[in-house]
Amino acid sequence: MTPVKADKFTFGLWTVGWQARDPFGDATREAIDPVETVHRLAELGAYGVTFHDDDLIPFGSDEAARQKHIERFKAALAETGLVVPMATTNLFTHPVFKEGAFTANDRDVRRFALRKVMRNLDLAAELGANTYVFWGGREGSESDAAKDVRAALDRFKEGLDFLAQYCIDRGYDIRFALEPKPNEPRGDILLPTIGHALAFINSLEHSEMVGLNPEVGHEQMAGLNFVHGIAQALWHGKLFHIDLNGQRGVKYDQDFVFGHGDVLNAFFLVDLLETGGYEGPRHFDYKPLRTEDITGVWASAAANMRTYLLLKERAAAWRADPRVVEALAASKVPELSVPTLNPGESYEELMAEKSDVDALAARGSGIVHLNQLAVEHLMGVKP
Amino acid sequence: MTPVKADKFTFGLWTVGWQARDPFGDATREAIDPVETVHRLAELGAYGVTFHDDDLIPFGSDEAARQKHIERFKAALAETGLVVPMATTNLFTHPVFKEGAFTANDRDVRRFALRKVMRNLDLAAELGANTYVFWGGREGSESDAAKDVRAALDRFKEGLDFLAQYCIDRGYDIRFALEPKPNEPRGDILLPTIGHALAFINSLEHSEMVGLNPEVGHEQMAGLNFVHGIAQALWHGKLFHIDLNGQRGVKYDQDFVFGHGDVLNAFFLVDLLETGGYEGPRHFDYKPLRTEDITGVWASAAANMRTYLLLKERAAAWRADPRVVEALAASKVPELSVPTLNPGESYEELMAEKSDVDALAARGSGIVHLNQLAVEHLMGVKP
Amino acid sequence: MTPVKADKFTFGLWTVGWQARDPFGDATREAIDPVETVHRLAELGAYGVTFHDDDLIPFGSDEAARQKHIERFKAALAETGLVVPMATTNLFTHPVFKEGAFTANDRDVRRFALRKVMRNLDLAAELGANTYVFWGGREGSESDAAKDVRAALDRFKEGLDFLAQYCIDRGYDIRFALEPKPNEPRGDILLPTIGHALAFINSLEHSEMVGLNPEVGHEQMAGLNFVHGIAQALWHGKLFHIDLNGQRGVKYDQDFVFGHGDVLNAFFLVDLLETGGYEGPRHFDYKPLRTEDITGVWASAAANMRTYLLLKERAAAWRADPRVVEALAASKVPELSVPTLNPGESYEELMAEKSDVDALAARGSGIVHLNQLAVEHLMGVKP
Amino acid sequence: MTPVKADKFTFGLWTVGWQARDPFGDATREAIDPVETVHRLAELGAYGVTFHDDDLIPFGSDEAARQKHIERFKAALAETGLVVPMATTNLFTHPVFKEGAFTANDRDVRRFALRKVMRNLDLAAELGANTYVFWGGREGSESDAAKDVRAALDRFKEGLDFLAQYCIDRGYDIRFALEPKPNEPRGDILLPTIGHALAFINSLEHSEMVGLNPEVGHEQMAGLNFVHGIAQALWHGKLFHIDLNGQRGVKYDQDFVFGHGDVLNAFFLVDLLETGGYEGPRHFDYKPLRTEDITGVWASAAANMRTYLLLKERAAAWRADPRVVEALAASKVPELSVPTLNPGESYEELMAEKSDVDALAARGSGIVHLNQLAVEHLMGVKP
Repeated sequence: MTPVKADKFTFGLWTVGWQARDPFGDATREAIDPVETVHRLAELGAYGVTFHDDDLIPFGSDEAARQKHIERFKAALAETGLVVPMATTNLFTHPVFKEGAFTANDRDVRRFALRKVMRNLDLAAELGANTYVFWGGREGSESDAAKDVRAALDRFKEGLDFLAQYCIDRGYDIRFALEPKPNEPRGDILLPTIGHALAFINSLEHSEMVGLNPEVGHEQMAGLNFVHGIAQALWHGKLFHIDLNGQRGVKYDQDFVFGHGDVLNAFFLVDLLETGGYEGPRHFDYKPLRTEDITGVWASAAANMRTYLLLKERAAAWRADPRVVEALAASKVPELSVPTLNPGESYEELMAEKSDVDALAARGSGIVHLNQLAVEHLMGVKP
Repeated sequence: MTPVKADKFTFGLWTVGWQARDPFGDATREAIDPVETVHRLAELGAYGVTFHDDDLIPFGSDEAARQKHIERFKAALAETGLVVPMATTNLFTHPVFKEGAFTANDRDVRRFALRKVMRNLDLAAELGANTYVFWGGREGSESDAAKDVRAALDRFKEGLDFLAQYCIDRGYDIRFALEPKPNEPRGDILLPTIGHALAFINSLEHSEMVGLNPEVGHEQMAGLNFVHGIAQALWHGKLFHIDLNGQRGVKYDQDFVFGHGDVLNAFFLVDLLETGGYEGPRHFDYKPLRTEDITGVWASAAANMRTYLLLKERAAAWRADPRVVEALAASKVPELSVPTLNPGESYEELMAEKSDVDALAARGSGIVHLNQLAVEHLMGVKP
Repeated sequence: MTPVKADKFTFGLWTVGWQARDPFGDATREAIDPVETVHRLAELGAYGVTFHDDDLIPFGSDEAARQKHIERFKAALAETGLVVPMATTNLFTHPVFKEGAFTANDRDVRRFALRKVMRNLDLAAELGANTYVFWGGREGSESDAAKDVRAALDRFKEGLDFLAQYCIDRGYDIRFALEPKPNEPRGDILLPTIGHALAFINSLEHSEMVGLNPEVGHEQMAGLNFVHGIAQALWHGKLFHIDLNGQRGVKYDQDFVFGHGDVLNAFFLVDLLETGGYEGPRHFDYKPLRTEDITGVWASAAANMRTYLLLKERAAAWRADPRVVEALAASKVPELSVPTLNPGESYEELMAEKSDVDALAARGSGIVHLNQLAVEHLMGVKP
Repeated sequence: MTPVKADKFTFGLWTVGWQARDPFGDATREAIDPVETVHRLAELGAYGVTFHDDDLIPFGSDEAARQKHIERFKAALAETGLVVPMATTNLFTHPVFKEGAFTANDRDVRRFALRKVMRNLDLAAELGANTYVFWGGREGSESDAAKDVRAALDRFKEGLDFLAQYCIDRGYDIRFALEPKPNEPRGDILLPTIGHALAFINSLEHSEMVGLNPEVGHEQMAGLNFVHGIAQALWHGKLFHIDLNGQRGVKYDQDFVFGHGDVLNAFFLVDLLETGGYEGPRHFDYKPLRTEDITGVWASAAANMRTYLLLKERAAAWRADPRVVEALAASKVPELSVPTLNPGESYEELMAEKSDVDALAARGSGIVHLNQLAVEHLMGVKP
């Protein structure tokens, strides 16, 4: 249960670095030097670190200061061997983005947002990131009068098309990953779920280089099943990155430690990630509780990784248990992979088949038994 | 405020015909003869009527009975002039569909479901319907162990591709409309929101003939903004049909009268439908409260149409009010339709622009004023 | 992990007996003879069985039929040794209760409801039940216009005061337990949460004989923490009975197997029930999934008990783990039992104390570590 | 529609004064001098102003600074005639309260919290406030391991009993009003709803001097009907104060302008407040949108009052409309005020009555018609 680099665990600078300012309270913790974060994460067994531009280089820094921040960070990476697989832009903290960034009604704001991204794309490429995340937390509205959603989607597309072309023209080996969220900080955020973002991507100029970075809590804030969402994202070939954390239901964004929310759904998520072909980082986008001091911060970072590894072990045992294999078969789960139609079957052939509907209806599905086995494997009950 | 056919109001047979059986209670009303429904809806000013196969022809009817039901229905349509712009299949009431229809783990069930749809597609075409709705209410699961979601999406696609081809081969002038819902009656339903369904459609063989039939309450059950969802559906050119009703927040599916839920969102919805290019039926998919007798049933049908017309009047007044035009401009709502980039602008030109970020950030958005004007127009306050 | 009578596991006849009719589907299972249920539950290790009047005696049975049902049931109890610790009234299935029972606007309905309860109270007493549950599922409204809530509370109080007096006058050793629920089947149900019901009880004539029967899913449907609710109920001395089941968040009432929802909250619930002084039955009020046949029904009944016992074992291990004791102390959890004021402390003495607020603020709470230990104990990780 | 003092509109200093710092963004507005707020509110027609200690006197001010702040504030009140009907304590912003105030595990924090309240009670009394609000926003937990809820309720009671005695001993004409909230900023807050707080109050030493200050959005965050909650609070004689604002469903705390959320529920709320015997202030506890500049701040303050007055006019028209009177009677709404039992009725007399249950069940309730009349009155449709 000790994390190693091959586990591909990554953390955002802003996660452990969160100073715990919330809508009703001031910061409870000091800022952490990104260099310190890199070293501590390395010690804990992480594989990489990710950042928003402003996490590394305070907003408004001049060029000299900027370079110094970057150099110190690079040195820490070199010392620790940590990589930077992903980077992103802060388009939400500064008041200039209060009404949006790529979809702000104010065109000047939109242009400023594009420049801010371009600049950080250069840095992301320089640091070797091959995924660039877009979380449009301010792209939305509180009043249906105040945002022309169709125009907003035009602008969102314009921005992403432009930035994708920029990466192509610059020769950056970067893919984009959109991160949906239903609300907070805006009353309603555009592209609120995995589904809305997937649909939108299909309309992009370079849709092949744009995928998703779904976050556990963001889907659960809408009462949606995260495992279902990830499965659909995989089905579309669009799971480019993932944000792991914990959430306890439909309420404000909690960003708990992974597994400290709906742990049964987390069990099935790890099962899916480990068996479903996802090979990217396991990225924790969480916040150490505001009640914690710095000791609690690092304990919480470790807890994320440890819970993932425990769930991975449990999920593997579940898959390997002959009782589970039998129960899956009894529930006909594998049969769903068999096409419904026979090869080359005609309409007439299909229509000619007669069903004994009552007999079909009487077949039990055996799902409770199957689910109970999962609950018990989660709980570490030996067969 | 008296509905006329040009208003294109339509109702499902199952709406006024709901006998008010709920999870905790028996039916409180008698069944209504579909012929009676057609006549009463015509009297109330409706334009059309829609149906599930089993609404018109009880499940298990033999061919002779089936024809008789159809003939009586056709006669009523002819007498009243009501049209049938949409039809759909009941793939959820019979126990055979308890674990799904197109995505049931049991292949025999899937094949039965396809046949049931094919048969009713023939009838839909015969009755002149040009939209065919798919609500996959049983496509889902209560346990993450019991459904391979990616296999399920394969089967869903297989079924829809097959049925689309069937319509093409038969020469039917029919388009498909998927109706998303997040949950209930299944714990989690596949394609839970407008977004997920839009994304899925892009993967279909005949995606051009498949769009959406979103329902007010279904999106609101996930806490999503229905107006935003409809705007995105329009943006993708996929609003093929719409289900209007009322819902009071994140809870069980309520199917209230249109406007008897979030009436402010309904105001903006009508504004969008009336100005956004949607030309299909205004279809009410609601349930008369279980407390009502037959008088209440018809009163509730009338209430849907009246509320729509009232909102339409209010929304038109809002658009026409010079104060609103001014407030929209002050909030820069129209500016969002101006591209962010100048024509042919180079990266360097964009990057060369300097922003006075603090000045930009200081600009007020004027949204509260704008929203208050909307609230007042909803309330019929004269300027 | 084999249940025995001392575990005090009980089931409602309506739970395993649910025929799986839901708002969108017909029954998928046959009715089960209550006598059969008693025998099967006894075999599975249950302690008792509970019932609504109509579960045992179909609505409208004549006196002779009624007696016959009762005698057969009593015989089964005698044969198996199962007890009936709780009974309740069905005031929700029949259409007569569509607009309420004790708080129906229609006084005739209210009077009928009282008679129905009185009659079943006689039977409950005869069968030895000492808890009588009131779930007011139809006491509520869909329109704020249609229910005078204050008058409704007057009538609710009138009804319960009358029925309490009835028990006293008849010499029944029965206590009442109110079961709150926020919504479904009514849009809004009166006394929607544990809190509202506790407050109402204080206004009753015989408040000492009225307590609560909270249900896991009912509180979770409102996004409330069930463990917090049960703790408050215990604090008021009002946890008379409990309904255990599973729910996956804010949505329709799911009635899953206990633990098949928020299993981490269930872990802490069992910890609280086992250490907090509750000595009543562990009553499962769940529904076997609609997908299951009769084999699945009994498997699900067994799963409830097994999950409870597993959680009980895990919770005991958690309490006994020295690391947990230490972590609780570090988080100052036990310190909360120390009064805030010194004995006899004066205002002046308190005010004279000076705090080093920054030092106080800097103390970390150690909660993530504590919670991680709980997650690991739930998962059966050995120290 | 111009507010006057008799309307009793009041605002917290922290409402218009909110600088719009949110979990993801920095402040977008300057602080407003409380003196300025008093003057502007007076110009807009408000009746009074309310405050947290720290709104008026920055945390950590010395005695001289404190007195100066108070004197300036008093002068502004005197100049404008505004009153201070309510005051409260900030027990949530400073990091010292990160794990609670009255129920912090750390006893030193609890003692500090009591002192902070006592000091501000003195000021509240001095300024003439007769209601003192307790919002326990930090009293709660994110982990069920980390808070002994029963001990916490003991401490909450200890604190309130102590402070009530303090007011009595000091001769202050002050009543306490508890403000419930389900979550945010804590994962679960103690006393999460109107109901839980009402129940708790009954256990207090001086329960007669403790009531409620419910907030629209706080109940709606749990999906509860605010009108129902207020009606129950009135029924218990505990509506001491009220916080009016807007919320759009189960999500983060939005604090929109009153009526800019569920406006239909707001219509019935105003109806209840105006006819139900509540005579206290109409207090707006909202936040001007983060997108607004100072002009928008004052526009939003005015919007709250204007919407209230519009709803008041609409609700009065609804009550006066003969069609409504008739529809209420048809729905038997007034009949609910008739006791269910006849005076002195015996058990035998009641049991002897026979009901024609089917006839009773067949009576329609006419609720849709009634609700439609309400929707139309909200929309200002003339009869």
